[in-house]
Amino acid sequence: MLLLLPGPVQTRPEVRAAAAQDYAPWDNDFRVVYAEIRERVLAIAGGIPGEHATLPLQGCGHFLMEAALRTFVPPGGKVLIPQNGAYADRALRLAREAGRQVVVLPGPDTRGVTAEEVAAALAADPAIGHVAMVHNETGSGIVNDPAVIGPVVRAAGRRLILDSVSAFGVLPLRLADHPEVDAVLFTSGKCLEGLPGIGFAVARVDRVTAAAGHAGSWSFDLSDVYQHALRVGWGSFRFTPPVQALAAFRVALDLYEAEGGQVARLARYRENARVLYDGVRALGLTPYLDWSEQGPVVITVHQPADPAFALQPCVDALKARGVLISNFYNSRASSFRIGCIGAVTPEDMRRAVAAIGGALEDLGVRRREMA
Amino acid sequence: MLLLLPGPVQTRPEVRAAAAQDYAPWDNDFRVVYAEIRERVLAIAGGIPGEHATLPLQGCGHFLMEAALRTFVPPGGKVLIPQNGAYADRALRLAREAGRQVVVLPGPDTRGVTAEEVAAALAADPAIGHVAMVHNETGSGIVNDPAVIGPVVRAAGRRLILDSVSAFGVLPLRLADHPEVDAVLFTSGKCLEGLPGIGFAVARVDRVTAAAGHAGSWSFDLSDVYQHALRVGWGSFRFTPPVQALAAFRVALDLYEAEGGQVARLARYRENARVLYDGVRALGLTPYLDWSEQGPVVITVHQPADPAFALQPCVDALKARGVLISNFYNSRASSFRIGCIGAVTPEDMRRAVAAIGGALEDLGVRRREMA
Repeated sequence: MLLLLPGPVQTRPEVRAAAAQDYAPWDNDFRVVYAEIRERVLAIAGGIPGEHATLPLQGCGHFLMEAALRTFVPPGGKVLIPQNGAYADRALRLAREAGRQVVVLPGPDTRGVTAEEVAAALAADPAIGHVAMVHNETGSGIVNDPAVIGPVVRAAGRRLILDSVSAFGVLPLRLADHPEVDAVLFTSGKCLEGLPGIGFAVARVDRVTAAAGHAGSWSFDLSDVYQHALRVGWGSFRFTPPVQALAAFRVALDLYEAEGGQVARLARYRENARVLYDGVRALGLTPYLDWSEQGPVVITVHQPADPAFALQPCVDALKARGVLISNFYNSRASSFRIGCIGAVTPEDMRRAVAAIGGALEDLGVRRREMA
Repeated sequence: MLLLLPGPVQTRPEVRAAAAQDYAPWDNDFRVVYAEIRERVLAIAGGIPGEHATLPLQGCGHFLMEAALRTFVPPGGKVLIPQNGAYADRALRLAREAGRQVVVLPGPDTRGVTAEEVAAALAADPAIGHVAMVHNETGSGIVNDPAVIGPVVRAAGRRLILDSVSAFGVLPLRLADHPEVDAVLFTSGKCLEGLPGIGFAVARVDRVTAAAGHAGSWSFDLSDVYQHALRVGWGSFRFTPPVQALAAFRVALDLYEAEGGQVARLARYRENARVLYDGVRALGLTPYLDWSEQGPVVITVHQPADPAFALQPCVDALKARGVLISNFYNSRASSFRIGCIGAVTPEDMRRAVAAIGGALEDLGVRRREMA
């Protein structure tokens, strides 16, 4: 079965094999492994040792986003969220329920937010202290580019929290060039091709230190995660970690580096995306995004208008042909989505396109757009 | 290597093998697996279908405890915490940082809290709405027994949150007999012998429904976890789950039932504990607890007074002999601790006792107490 999800992704057998062992997280042999993971993550983020620190958090991407919002945005503080996708919607809810004031910057879910839009929103409300932005929106596949938005935030004297859960390690980012970024967030089971269960914030040490007392939650206090590491050492966790997911992540980092790191992985994913994008168009389907807005992580496709089409039967027909895609969508118009990330290749994408064509035939969907 | 930790525990190879596969969490085949896990967990808790519900939460036991405190104790509400161990200390901090008022019921970490103590504390302060209690204290090994404390809480018209992270599935509990329990909490990697990464609250449906709006945290709102399940179905997660840990947990449940469930597992752990307890005494060491207070999960042992003893060298010497124990302690007096849980047998415990004797000899520790 070929898994084409925007995470959890298809992994390599070496990664999964590392999860099939017992580990003692506080054992000195394992502490070394984990301390090394932290350093490697910092390097991938382009952080500066001493200025940035890798902070782990058990769980999922939402937990990390809530932790970052609680830690960096003070209680009652104001955060601007460009709302151009499902994960931005979620960030908004996480911030509001945590008692932060949210200023929404609305936008279509078919393009990244622009520098002008962010600059205008920040100029209009001097009380906004932070921008929280989704780097790659897995709802639709668009990219909000920190290389474009970061300088605007910096120029306005505000701070940026970057949810890079489905982009980290693939979309370019060098924290050393982004002093406006308080933290970038990601999880183990996306573009770094590990198993899900653990996430990381790579954060500015000065900012995370200054944020002590903000969180209103011990579990989600990244400032305490940092203080714990200072106190007990970089190889130690506050609470029981998902140790198999960590061990697998270490192997995933080995494979990432062996492949050639960010540049090579982005090239593979871009080619995966291109094959899929062109392939679904050749089948007479309509991608959700213009190619100019299309990120390399997920291809979203409009559902065919033909009443013979329905999502779950299509997913089932694809599965019968050996390809597993999401059985839900979270773009604003009805769609289906195909992940381009994980241990999958352009050749796999060609198989997937053929399977999609076959599945549509199985359902009896006429491909109007081809006519 | 024999892992003798109070979690993560040594697991059976079948459990670990299930983690060495990729899974799509929202795939219909996996939803069935997960929905079934929820039902089996409810049965182990002795809950009543329709009156109780199994609610999952990614991460670790601390996250579950914070989620339960936030969900069931309203903002500003008052919770009584019997403070007789390290995990009670942590519950206290979780509650305080979440903005709940904590009333501490202090006690030694060498015995369970008594019915009289809890009754007196509740009578003294009618504003206390909840008691939050650690079922098995992995800091020392004592048990706070819900069969004793539950009726007191019930008689006083208060509610109980039971942190059963290191006891669930082994220490007896039948939620049907405990209408005063809002939720019992546990994680996958302890007495049910799965891998760490996921936890569950088994909660009263009426209480979790009434708790809507309390949490002040979307991630930790168990009421929202419940509403999500109602809306989207019991096989669905709100956020990306650690799917390998879940798949492994299903296999762990199979093995638990094949062994004979709670009665059989408790008998094995009790025998593990007895062999260890008697074994370390025969080595001239002093267990931290009287046998009458000793739970079946972890044996804590006073560090020998001989200056030749130090914890890390002892742990290293034990490891060289094939036995891995915690390299830290969290009882009030200095100790070391040996887990009795996981896929380990009384025969393993006899090996462990021999290894401890050998390790003390390696360190040149004279066993004064034997003399």
